[in-house]
Amino acid sequence: MKCRKCSQKAVINMRQHKLALCTEHFPEWIVEQTQRFIQKYRMFTHQERVLVAVSGGKDSLSLWDILWQLGYNADGVYIALGIDGGFGYSRKSQVLCKEFATQRGLKLIVVDAPKDIGLTIPELAAITQRGKDKPCAVCGLVKRHILDRVAKEGQYDVLATGHNLDDEAAVLFGNTLSWNIGYLHRQSPVLAARHAGLVRKVKPLCRFYEREMAAYALVRGIEYIYEECPHAEGSTTIYYKTLLNQLETDRPGAKLSFYLAFLQAKEKGLFAHTEEEGFGAGGETLYTCPSCGGPTTVEGLCAYCRMVEKVK
Amino acid sequence: MKCRKCSQKAVINMRQHKLALCTEHFPEWIVEQTQRFIQKYRMFTHQERVLVAVSGGKDSLSLWDILWQLGYNADGVYIALGIDGGFGYSRKSQVLCKEFATQRGLKLIVVDAPKDIGLTIPELAAITQRGKDKPCAVCGLVKRHILDRVAKEGQYDVLATGHNLDDEAAVLFGNTLSWNIGYLHRQSPVLAARHAGLVRKVKPLCRFYEREMAAYALVRGIEYIYEECPHAEGSTTIYYKTLLNQLETDRPGAKLSFYLAFLQAKEKGLFAHTEEEGFGAGGETLYTCPSCGGPTTVEGLCAYCRMVEKVK
Repeated sequence: MKCRKCSQKAVINMRQHKLALCTEHFPEWIVEQTQRFIQKYRMFTHQERVLVAVSGGKDSLSLWDILWQLGYNADGVYIALGIDGGFGYSRKSQVLCKEFATQRGLKLIVVDAPKDIGLTIPELAAITQRGKDKPCAVCGLVKRHILDRVAKEGQYDVLATGHNLDDEAAVLFGNTLSWNIGYLHRQSPVLAARHAGLVRKVKPLCRFYEREMAAYALVRGIEYIYEECPHAEGSTTIYYKTLLNQLETDRPGAKLSFYLAFLQAKEKGLFAHTEEEGFGAGGETLYTCPSCGGPTTVEGLCAYCRMVEKVK
Repeated sequence: MKCRKCSQKAVINMRQHKLALCTEHFPEWIVEQTQRFIQKYRMFTHQERVLVAVSGGKDSLSLWDILWQLGYNADGVYIALGIDGGFGYSRKSQVLCKEFATQRGLKLIVVDAPKDIGLTIPELAAITQRGKDKPCAVCGLVKRHILDRVAKEGQYDVLATGHNLDDEAAVLFGNTLSWNIGYLHRQSPVLAARHAGLVRKVKPLCRFYEREMAAYALVRGIEYIYEECPHAEGSTTIYYKTLLNQLETDRPGAKLSFYLAFLQAKEKGLFAHTEEEGFGAGGETLYTCPSCGGPTTVEGLCAYCRMVEKVK
């Protein structure tokens, strides 16, 4: 297989685009496409301050690398969660994020969640009801809270995450299986800030397949943590990803067209009218947490502050 | 496993309902549930004349059997399509439908499609562009046309088909993968007549799994054709069914909850507002075919009459 642009040996063949590219033109293409998506979905401008949530994985570090190449004003934030899994998952990830930032002269904010809460995520999960059932739910709550807080405190305009197409398609698949209109309404490459305690959230990699991001990180020589979070094993999202991978193998491009057709249907007004009708489709009232100033769907402390209160 | 109602040996265990039933109580339950669905979705009353489309398969013959037991005024219609497949598919099916009707003293209308058109379905598929790509599309067009015509000519109030949950979930899955809003809008247990040449269409078995209908036919001693239509092999619908079966195996009840959550979301107004906005979501103008008087989406002959004209 040869590169479409220069006839050198291709490093990747993207069947859904009928496009094969070499080690030089593939990363170039990824960067150009990301810029296209940033503009198409009006994610942010060169004048705005971007905060990139980095985990040490290939997606978030590649995203930061791309935004850096595109000349965006993008700092990183890493949340130490205290997850070990027998191989020092959190510690390793943090080192990789720091090295990445140092190599490029970028600013990395590190937040130590266990210091904030008094417990690591696995400890927190073990003692809360929510965490016993779903440790990832507790972790998600903590991360969302900290990311919003850091973004607000640092006066960033936008928070960017490295979610790729496989992530988005799996979430969409789950929300479609249950026809969760509220979640379907909110799933988007850009989520506007609905409360003073929130910033705009964007997913510039939402149209790239996971394998494309893995190839990008490889070609660009980005060192990232290969291991999945040890708690993710057996998760519903991974199950849906496996099912969608099977569909993709049988029908190349199915995952991308599923996601893009959804975005188009939304653009045409699907889900738009449901807000007023009590679906809670992104239209529900948000209160302000008296402790952290963040948003909450019920009056009083937000879910994060309630949890921290309990623990302490 | 014992029957929930009488402690006899259960013939089926329906995990999604946490319900096991014996050979006596299972068919009773199916009949009662069908009556519940007929009322819930306002399909038809005992005063209305029902036409059941029978193919000789387990679903449609079981449906006719259930409606007969429930005392509905239900005649059957069988369309001979001239499909052989090396084992006399159409011929066999017709014999089974006739025997079924005779045993119960029911009226069966038989329509000979090849006589109407001048060609069998396989012959027709072979010479039309539409049929070369998708023989099932030609067959569907012919069947829809004939069923509507027979229902109108016989002054039936409603046309009932034997689509089960597996059929409906597979169609829904396909329409969701492509986010086809028009099709999603129209998919329903009851489809109102949108044109003078159409009758109301209903699917009383839409909430039963295929295996439940197979068990019903077995327990009731209904003789049906086991073979699938030889042309269905490799179809997209069968592919989606396989994928959904895998999901169902891993998450019992997933297929039913996918379909029911969709119906609930629709009831709450999802897709309802899209009609006015040019989605063609069931709201497009229907013209009248000058030849057959049936509906057509373009002015002039309908797709069926155009095809027959060409052939002749």
